[in-house]
Amino acid sequence: MSNLLLKNIRPLGADATDLLIRNGVIAEIGRIKAVDGVTVEDGGNAILWPGLIDAHTHLDKTTWGMDWHENDREAVLRSRIDFERENRIGIGIDPHRQSMRHAIGLAAHGASHIRSHVDIDPTHGLRLVEGVQETREKLRGIIDIEIVAFPQSGLMVMPGTLELLDEALASGCEVLGGIDPCGIDRDPKGQLDALFALAVKHGVSVDIHLHEAGELGAFTMELIFERVRANGMQGKFAISHAFALGMNDHLRVGRLIDEIAELDIAILTTGAPSATVPSVKRLREAGIRVGAGCDGIRDTWGPWGQPDMIDRATVIGMRNGFRSDADLRLALEIVSQGGADVMRLEGYGVGCKADFTLLDGQTVAHAVVNRAPRPLVVKGGRVVARDGLCIVEMP
Amino acid sequence: MSNLLLKNIRPLGADATDLLIRNGVIAEIGRIKAVDGVTVEDGGNAILWPGLIDAHTHLDKTTWGMDWHENDREAVLRSRIDFERENRIGIGIDPHRQSMRHAIGLAAHGASHIRSHVDIDPTHGLRLVEGVQETREKLRGIIDIEIVAFPQSGLMVMPGTLELLDEALASGCEVLGGIDPCGIDRDPKGQLDALFALAVKHGVSVDIHLHEAGELGAFTMELIFERVRANGMQGKFAISHAFALGMNDHLRVGRLIDEIAELDIAILTTGAPSATVPSVKRLREAGIRVGAGCDGIRDTWGPWGQPDMIDRATVIGMRNGFRSDADLRLALEIVSQGGADVMRLEGYGVGCKADFTLLDGQTVAHAVVNRAPRPLVVKGGRVVARDGLCIVEMP
Repeated sequence: MSNLLLKNIRPLGADATDLLIRNGVIAEIGRIKAVDGVTVEDGGNAILWPGLIDAHTHLDKTTWGMDWHENDREAVLRSRIDFERENRIGIGIDPHRQSMRHAIGLAAHGASHIRSHVDIDPTHGLRLVEGVQETREKLRGIIDIEIVAFPQSGLMVMPGTLELLDEALASGCEVLGGIDPCGIDRDPKGQLDALFALAVKHGVSVDIHLHEAGELGAFTMELIFERVRANGMQGKFAISHAFALGMNDHLRVGRLIDEIAELDIAILTTGAPSATVPSVKRLREAGIRVGAGCDGIRDTWGPWGQPDMIDRATVIGMRNGFRSDADLRLALEIVSQGGADVMRLEGYGVGCKADFTLLDGQTVAHAVVNRAPRPLVVKGGRVVARDGLCIVEMP
Repeated sequence: MSNLLLKNIRPLGADATDLLIRNGVIAEIGRIKAVDGVTVEDGGNAILWPGLIDAHTHLDKTTWGMDWHENDREAVLRSRIDFERENRIGIGIDPHRQSMRHAIGLAAHGASHIRSHVDIDPTHGLRLVEGVQETREKLRGIIDIEIVAFPQSGLMVMPGTLELLDEALASGCEVLGGIDPCGIDRDPKGQLDALFALAVKHGVSVDIHLHEAGELGAFTMELIFERVRANGMQGKFAISHAFALGMNDHLRVGRLIDEIAELDIAILTTGAPSATVPSVKRLREAGIRVGAGCDGIRDTWGPWGQPDMIDRATVIGMRNGFRSDADLRLALEIVSQGGADVMRLEGYGVGCKADFTLLDGQTVAHAVVNRAPRPLVVKGGRVVARDGLCIVEMP
């Protein structure tokens, strides 16, 4: 683990100071003179912020760095899923190479941790997971990757998937995924009962994709609440997207939020501009853990996205109608501490593990909208990126 | 006017060819050998696209290039308006310097035309307009600026404003603006009757800000329809924002759209992610002229925005749920030909006036999401920006 003396940084936007890292841990904050044998970096008065966290992405899907993928297909969820499953390898989306590109891009932009859903289906078995696992090993010390075993193509409608998920959880996937028990699987009881049984068997938490909007999504949430309670999985369940919480019924949403808070269910948002998204502020005011992710970037589903959690903070901020400096700070917290809360990261934050990024901006709010490269990214006390470039090149 | 031979460009994304400009006009497209006395530029196989058009912005408002403006105020439209009017000069938002920065930024990113609303109120009289007029003169040949005389603080609630608008239209403002006749002025009949009388008097068109959502905005639209018809102003009215067209009633919106199409009213959108915005596709399918703008950027209202119409195309595209290559091309058309349709620009498009930008991308869709600087921007046959930098420096 590394030692480093970082001069002239503003922790969380406060007054400029210095920071000493010993053995990968922040040992001292304050004005510090040179320390024998410790490398010195000048922070140039940049803001120091804990490592950004992409708590909902898909490392196995991007076409980043490949030739442009033309998309002339209809915008139907089921069609997107099937097209991808059937064509991804033929198109050249190698899960290891592409997850390397995606994860290196995130590290270059200041991220220290990733939660990635990775597709598991009978067509590919665990090969996509293995590709991302290879990336995880290669990037150890650069960025931490948590893998969600994700039945993208459905569970009940894709026989053989349940057994593959079981296998994936036995071989290193930390979290169990799920997807639209009504919309995709057409059998909410079937999928949810299977997921909960598997999660209990492996002692893992669940993070389910829930695109189901309005009353349909609310119904699925109620089924989830019942099972979280029955299985004692309070604090071990997360709902990604949660579009139903963006529906236009304040009281109904309020009752769902009350249960989510009571059961300590986490919510992950992408701030999707064309969907009904939950209000980040309303969730936070209810005491709910809220993280965020860049989701798929430039994949067969759609062209949008950057491997950059500051960019995602702006998407979330704009979608949530944020304008004030305090709001912009909240957007930044969602893509950092918020993700750590969801992933239950230990030792996260300024004061313990030396995982952080410098941000270029006069103030924290300015840094969010500034679109400047990250001057320096540090992971475990080691410089892993500088001026927007990671020390590991994209393959 | 300039002559220029541009080699290796792909007009509108088609196969690579060359382009000869004589006297500021496109004279020939095809493989062309050197022409005596004509400067040669190599386009590097970039896409050639007509100059981008910011058809709804506020050049007089931005803090771009100034110290960060901290915003700790409540998010209420009337409060924003009053704060800005009372503090803008004290904060240092000089209308000439700031409109120069904003307009130069747009030109650097490939824009050839701007429609800017400029505030007119009893506090500032016509001073803000004069600042932007000075910018218009200085940037002649770099970017064209059309000015909308805009009663930002209201018309009926701000005595003296009507006379100032009258004066502004007599002294070089091309278009008459308006704002929320219900929401801001609390007197829809009063404002609209006054606006239409003034527009008829000066023979100008109107472009009104309509943030009013749902049934309130629909009501105001109906009042507008009556007056467009009564005054024979078909084709001479534009509604900016038109949030009411984003309301959740397909049939009601359909009836409004039918009238908008019949009266040839133009719609300007910013794709505001936290508002109910009109569906760009639905408007276009109804044959309505649709343009777009970046609106205010980094001003006292809010921190968002870039002086870049490709960036705005991505905001509009994401808000409208665009994913396919054809959809991305439509987003690009909205920020180019769409604006020209709204502003009734003559000689616009590849084939006439040599106002265009090169775009870096394998395909048109790729160029929209690519976030690359514009390799070359040409106005009237003259190179005005290169690799993201305008030949005129920001003051």
